[in-house]
Amino acid sequence: MNANVHIVIMAGGVGSRFWPYSRNSRPKQFIDVMGIGKSLLQMTYERFLSVSNKDNIIVVTNHDYADLVKEQLPELSEDQILCEPKRRNTAPCIAYAAYKIHKKDPKAVMVVTPADHVVLQEERFSRVATVAIDAATDTDKIVTVGIKPTRPETGYGYIQYIEKSEGAVKPVKTFTEKPELELAKTFLESGDFVWNAGIFVWSTETITDAFSAFLPDIADTFEEGSSVYYTADEQDFINRVYPSCQNISIDYGILEKSSNVHVIEGDFDWSDLGTWNSLHEAREKDESENVIDGEVMVFDCKDSIIKSESGRLVVLDNLDGYLVGDFKDVLIVCKKDNEGKFREYVAQVKTEKGEKYL
Amino acid sequence: MNANVHIVIMAGGVGSRFWPYSRNSRPKQFIDVMGIGKSLLQMTYERFLSVSNKDNIIVVTNHDYADLVKEQLPELSEDQILCEPKRRNTAPCIAYAAYKIHKKDPKAVMVVTPADHVVLQEERFSRVATVAIDAATDTDKIVTVGIKPTRPETGYGYIQYIEKSEGAVKPVKTFTEKPELELAKTFLESGDFVWNAGIFVWSTETITDAFSAFLPDIADTFEEGSSVYYTADEQDFINRVYPSCQNISIDYGILEKSSNVHVIEGDFDWSDLGTWNSLHEAREKDESENVIDGEVMVFDCKDSIIKSESGRLVVLDNLDGYLVGDFKDVLIVCKKDNEGKFREYVAQVKTEKGEKYL
Repeated sequence: MNANVHIVIMAGGVGSRFWPYSRNSRPKQFIDVMGIGKSLLQMTYERFLSVSNKDNIIVVTNHDYADLVKEQLPELSEDQILCEPKRRNTAPCIAYAAYKIHKKDPKAVMVVTPADHVVLQEERFSRVATVAIDAATDTDKIVTVGIKPTRPETGYGYIQYIEKSEGAVKPVKTFTEKPELELAKTFLESGDFVWNAGIFVWSTETITDAFSAFLPDIADTFEEGSSVYYTADEQDFINRVYPSCQNISIDYGILEKSSNVHVIEGDFDWSDLGTWNSLHEAREKDESENVIDGEVMVFDCKDSIIKSESGRLVVLDNLDGYLVGDFKDVLIVCKKDNEGKFREYVAQVKTEKGEKYL
Repeated sequence: MNANVHIVIMAGGVGSRFWPYSRNSRPKQFIDVMGIGKSLLQMTYERFLSVSNKDNIIVVTNHDYADLVKEQLPELSEDQILCEPKRRNTAPCIAYAAYKIHKKDPKAVMVVTPADHVVLQEERFSRVATVAIDAATDTDKIVTVGIKPTRPETGYGYIQYIEKSEGAVKPVKTFTEKPELELAKTFLESGDFVWNAGIFVWSTETITDAFSAFLPDIADTFEEGSSVYYTADEQDFINRVYPSCQNISIDYGILEKSSNVHVIEGDFDWSDLGTWNSLHEAREKDESENVIDGEVMVFDCKDSIIKSESGRLVVLDNLDGYLVGDFKDVLIVCKKDNEGKFREYVAQVKTEKGEKYL
């Protein structure tokens, strides 16, 4: 195992698409959405134990979730949990981690990963990550991981690579964020597009250089921090400078601008679990295609997601394609594939009830 | 108001068709199924205040529900609550009330009514009851109340009357319990059939004579009790003799055998609330034909019954013709018109969980 490999798990996000499963106080990455007794964060952490020394795994999270991270990953030291005082998208988050790691290990190769995705074939994942790490070691390559698309998904970003290039790690031609359906269909047919899995590999030297080139203000800020990283003053420094950082994604701020971006195709099953339907797809199902968590009496139900954690007796009949979420303070029954509606539910709950249930 | 009029409200029943709304510990008659802040028992009691002196209203119930009756009708004296130690169908229940009333008031006219039906036009009901009482006073007529059928309902009993007879109170020709659909359709078309509302009017002299003629064992039992009614020994006597009474309905034991049965057609809206569909029909609905009790956020739902008493936030979308029952210990979501299924649910709950949720 390469001692210079460092993993940065981004676990600061919050979203409404999985409400009421996911709440502001406990977003998706902290939940056992797969029903296996581990949160997505815990699964992500474990996935990287075959790739990196465990002391080199860092979690960046929002200040509000620091205790949740400590609770779910008690093996992490204080220095392995980075707290954002405010959400500023992925570029500042990655810069903070990159400059901090670079101070300790100037030869570091760094893997950035979301905390709330799911990978079903861990061994394949490990092989792909190793190839990406090798490709980024002692080079100035920015390596992304792409997933072979299986449907014209309009919720993902697409990466087009230069097809005729040799080897597993191919130069990237274009990035396209959330295309319209027609365009997504064209991408799917053309064969040289992959989904952007949000996993990035680079040396800290490469990425800090890229920050200097494309996001110089952010570079200056976290470069300046080098004197306080791993000291008692670090958090105060971050609390002071972080909120005024530019709110920008790494994709938009660096990847789309850099000429040195490469992609390796992941051959593992992957999902960003961005919708109830994608959760349904990723989960094991019973013979009627139901995903069931909790003690539930199911009569004539199919193709549904049923989650009960209220401890009540739940009796369901005649549901096809539904989500039934039976939580301690909220009950939801709705079609699981009506993704746009969840925003509406959350908006109306906020209007009528305030923050209480969010 | 005729001081000899006595009302007997039968409130001892228990059923599974309304589970989990109705439970063994609190059957339908004790529940506010209409969502107006009163139980069906309370509504029944109030309905008869225009017909009878309130001291002449008796409630017969099962021993287990005596406290519920006292709680819901605190104005009743001890002598107005009759406790069956065991369920023996309607004939023993009516005999007990009849012989007891007859001891105090040999000129009594007695109205028997279920506790768990709903009547929507109380004034019309009151007029019909008064005509029936007049018809039964100083005669040997057994008077039943019939409801003009509006559909070929197979769950009700039908009463055929002699059409060409004069007056509102007509002699009865036949009784038919729960006919097949084809037969029910014929009844509906023929015009001389009405639904049996389970409301009976007679003098106590008439009905005690009928018990002597058709159910002599029951007659002997409750005749024997005349020495103890209204004494401290009454309940002991009842506890001793009641369980060995014949388990038989008044319809089968007396009405179908007597030649003196009459029927008056009730022109009021009535429902036995025997199914979720009939509850839906009897209740006020919103513009989407939903019946909603409790705080519920409804998006695209119609023709559904939604009852929430768990205190949780309930969000429902895309339900058509469903029952959503959100109770403290049970959640049920199913089609409201699939009546046969409720027996199945209850049976399976019993098998898997025992009596706890019944």
